Amino acid sequence: MTKRSDLGKIDHMSKRGKIVLSPVGIVHSPLTEGSEELPFQSFASDIEGEIEVFEEFEEGLDGIEGFSHLFIVFYMHKWKKTKLRTVPLMEEEERGIFGTRSPSRPNHIGCSTVRLLSREGRFLKVKGLDIFDGTPVLDIKPYVPRVDLVKGVDNDWLVKKLEKVRAKGKTTVRDIQRHLRND
Amino acid sequence: MTKRSDLGKIDHMSKRGKIVLSPVGIVHSPLTEGSEELPFQSFASDIEGEIEVFEEFEEGLDGIEGFSHLFIVFYMHKWKKTKLRTVPLMEEEERGIFGTRSPSRPNHIGCSTVRLLSREGRFLKVKGLDIFDGTPVLDIKPYVPRVDLVKGVDNDWLVKKLEKVRAKGKTTVRDIQRHLRND
Repeated sequence: MTKRSDLGKIDHMSKRGKIVLSPVGIVHSPLTEGSEELPFQSFASDIEGEIEVFEEFEEGLDGIEGFSHLFIVFYMHKWKKTKLRTVPLMEEEERGIFGTRSPSRPNHIGCSTVRLLSREGRFLKVKGLDIFDGTPVLDIKPYVPRVDLVKGVDNDWLVKKLEKVRAKGKTTVRDIQRHLRND
Repeated sequence: MTKRSDLGKIDHMSKRGKIVLSPVGIVHSPLTEGSEELPFQSFASDIEGEIEVFEEFEEGLDGIEGFSHLFIVFYMHKWKKTKLRTVPLMEEEERGIFGTRSPSRPNHIGCSTVRLLSREGRFLKVKGLDIFDGTPVLDIKPYVPRVDLVKGVDNDWLVKKLEKVRAKGKTTVRDIQRHLRND
């Protein structure tokens, strides 16, 4: 096992420790920064759009039709700032960014699970988007509950807040903001 | 919504469309490329290790102790090659990479859910690792079943294979390879 802080062990990176990635596709979505209907998470979304995979990666989609849900890893290109502490949407208290789903995180990597409706060549029609239009896609993986679901999870404040908001039928960022103002 | 192939809409990237990321930490794990005990997914792992978050990001860990499980996004630095089609570990048929969990994917981004055992400053002791020693960490998110679990999923061949292998108590890559040879 590497020792603590043994950074010399990280290879395949430039001297400055940067990792250089190329998008494999792009998201076509009705959601933009000002969208009224922006859902606060993909599980609360019925929004449909397309994931376009670039030509050079099309072969990688072979057989993907067999999966009902896909896990999308993307680069949240609309967020330029990183905050290490933030007040989450449904909270009053500041929290460390790694204990939140806030987009203001280092590296601005987002992960969402969407339903695959159909495939037309290198275009995937999907439902359940919470991703902005024009977002670069870094990876597509099959969503597998046996792999992705963990039992016996204790989620602290976040689950309680999610329950509360869902119970009231608030699923968009705007709804939640309005709701909190009038609370 | 952007038109298909409307790449001009992707900003915050260099002219060559690259996305440049910096690791926020590093994984300290007993797993190396030759490890006998390499699990084929994190849900099949009891392996303990540490996630070290670099000093400049330590503040982002505030309050993370409240979560029992963390979702780790990492760069699989040991895989240099990308294959768009691959034969998955438990399969005989070639499949498109985006319909598999194979590490030979474009951008080599890995995602695992691990149990958080304890925190000591910027070091997180975790259990359930399937990540190689020295792996750069790109992001840490709280694992939230309400967000991450999707119901009504149809997973095709992958679930059937996972069931088969788990039923036989095979949870490491080596076990599965041996099992397949003798099958």
